[in-house]
Amino acid sequence: MATNGTTPTVRDVAQLAGVSPGTVSKALNGRGQLREETRLRVRSAAEKLGFQPNHSARSLLAGRTYTVGVLTSDSFGRFTLPVMEGIEDSLGAGQLSTLLCDGRGDPLRERHYLQELLNRRVDGLVVTGRRSDPRRTVGRLPIPVIYVLTRSDEPGDLSVTYDDAQGAELAIQHLLSVGRKRFAFVSGPPGHLASRLRRQGAERGLAAAGLTLAPENVLLGQWSEAWGRTAAGLLVRRPAAERVDGIFCGSDQVARGVADGLREAGVGVPDDVSVVGFDNWDVMAEPSRPPLTTVDPNLTRLGQESASLLLAAIDGGELGTGVVLRPCELVLRESSVPA
Amino acid sequence: MATNGTTPTVRDVAQLAGVSPGTVSKALNGRGQLREETRLRVRSAAEKLGFQPNHSARSLLAGRTYTVGVLTSDSFGRFTLPVMEGIEDSLGAGQLSTLLCDGRGDPLRERHYLQELLNRRVDGLVVTGRRSDPRRTVGRLPIPVIYVLTRSDEPGDLSVTYDDAQGAELAIQHLLSVGRKRFAFVSGPPGHLASRLRRQGAERGLAAAGLTLAPENVLLGQWSEAWGRTAAGLLVRRPAAERVDGIFCGSDQVARGVADGLREAGVGVPDDVSVVGFDNWDVMAEPSRPPLTTVDPNLTRLGQESASLLLAAIDGGELGTGVVLRPCELVLRESSVPA
Repeated sequence: MATNGTTPTVRDVAQLAGVSPGTVSKALNGRGQLREETRLRVRSAAEKLGFQPNHSARSLLAGRTYTVGVLTSDSFGRFTLPVMEGIEDSLGAGQLSTLLCDGRGDPLRERHYLQELLNRRVDGLVVTGRRSDPRRTVGRLPIPVIYVLTRSDEPGDLSVTYDDAQGAELAIQHLLSVGRKRFAFVSGPPGHLASRLRRQGAERGLAAAGLTLAPENVLLGQWSEAWGRTAAGLLVRRPAAERVDGIFCGSDQVARGVADGLREAGVGVPDDVSVVGFDNWDVMAEPSRPPLTTVDPNLTRLGQESASLLLAAIDGGELGTGVVLRPCELVLRESSVPA
Repeated sequence: MATNGTTPTVRDVAQLAGVSPGTVSKALNGRGQLREETRLRVRSAAEKLGFQPNHSARSLLAGRTYTVGVLTSDSFGRFTLPVMEGIEDSLGAGQLSTLLCDGRGDPLRERHYLQELLNRRVDGLVVTGRRSDPRRTVGRLPIPVIYVLTRSDEPGDLSVTYDDAQGAELAIQHLLSVGRKRFAFVSGPPGHLASRLRRQGAERGLAAAGLTLAPENVLLGQWSEAWGRTAAGLLVRRPAAERVDGIFCGSDQVARGVADGLREAGVGVPDDVSVVGFDNWDVMAEPSRPPLTTVDPNLTRLGQESASLLLAAIDGGELGTGVVLRPCELVLRESSVPA
């Protein structure tokens, strides 16, 4: 570690080892024809001086920058963060660094960043974003590009995300397994792909048991606790014969609101009604009363797997195309299993 | 934007402009002696071909990498993210990129990253972390280093964070202004610097009004909603003469728990008791019933200001030393102002 204002240079190493600067470069990059004795003398001199090869110089020699760009379409938030963590898990092991750019949903800003990443000759690019709805492709680039969490609208690109419908199906199978018979689906805006896919998965899970989701029990509003409470209020005001006993919610925020709304209306969760959320967001699922059973999209694993795919492509492998869906898991807590 | 596998090189530009590669380099870097006519001819050729100067080559010439490292001591979370956004606001404008490293609280991992950032010759370093408690210095480095949100234990380093005590004082002044007379402070672990400083600020605010914080009304536990509910339960069971009418909480999670605990015990918020939180974390403060009045530490602005200081130091200015505290603001919502 350098500990003062002067950083040792190639020249300092060359002088100490009694060789030319070009020889130092060859010795430290493991290139060229050199006697082993010379190579060792240079390395020992470099170590003695605490010399670190200049990254820019190393990059020029190798034709690689050992850097991966990460471009997000909207701020790094609670969905993109665990993905980032997973990406770092995979890249960190291979000594790559990540250059982070936040386009904040502004196409011009994104364009600027993309250009900057290309100028810096990143070895590969990860494009990510909060919404699962398809986004515009960044186009064909001279480096491998992978879309994670978000999907590209260009079928020739590779997008890796989690399987909303399969996650929803898991939730319904669990509600069936604890004996629930009449279901509601409470979720965010109907236009959001996440709402649509989770509804499809729920319907598929019910169909397998010969059941259906009554249209009046599909309540689509906002991704908020307030909407969950409102929806719970609507459901408990139904005539007794029409009341549901299993509610699958499109997010943990909605599920927490539903649980609060039911409890405050005197309906027991999970004894009268089972509630299941989606996201496994600790900040919502754990303090909920009761804590939420929820679908975990495994975002960190998604990041790890995507980065591994990108690394393989940087090393010359084939990246593949299309949308790859990775499975979700169910996390059991108190909100779903009656005594 | 490059749109296929072949990227134009310096040689392509040189050929089109009818000059040598060395002249292209001089013309695009604005260096050396060249006729203006030649410089313009090269630039026009570069533009025509969509040529982007290789960043590694540019860095070697300029002795700068136009990259700033950001090292966090524990995962990028809800406290460090807005700071990151602010850093990006300031750096993005100057065309710098950020290399992001997450040490995850592991000194060995952090050491490895620090070395990697130095190898890459970053122009400056931001060290950040979730906890306001002092952390070990990364040592003297040949580049400017600034600690943001977290503090260095080395007085010769520069740390920039927000003023916990001043924020707490704002909260107390507000509670006094709405007519509150008997106060409690409910917060996280007593060992955390944030708890200690916020208590000091609350006591200072009360002292200015000739009041004190009774020791039995200082309830220190966890940074959680559950602890807030527990603390509210303890406070409402006091004899009527000893009950408080203003509660300042060390976080929005605690405040949300306190508001829930009071409401469920039949105590009106804000009519009977005013509640104020800390953090202005939208996910907690807005869905709380009622929504929380809270102290906003202005983390994005903190990031912007810190990055500007770092940029000035990279450009040769003096960085300064010690701990700089930036002011908090109060955000008014329904939980504090009685009808």
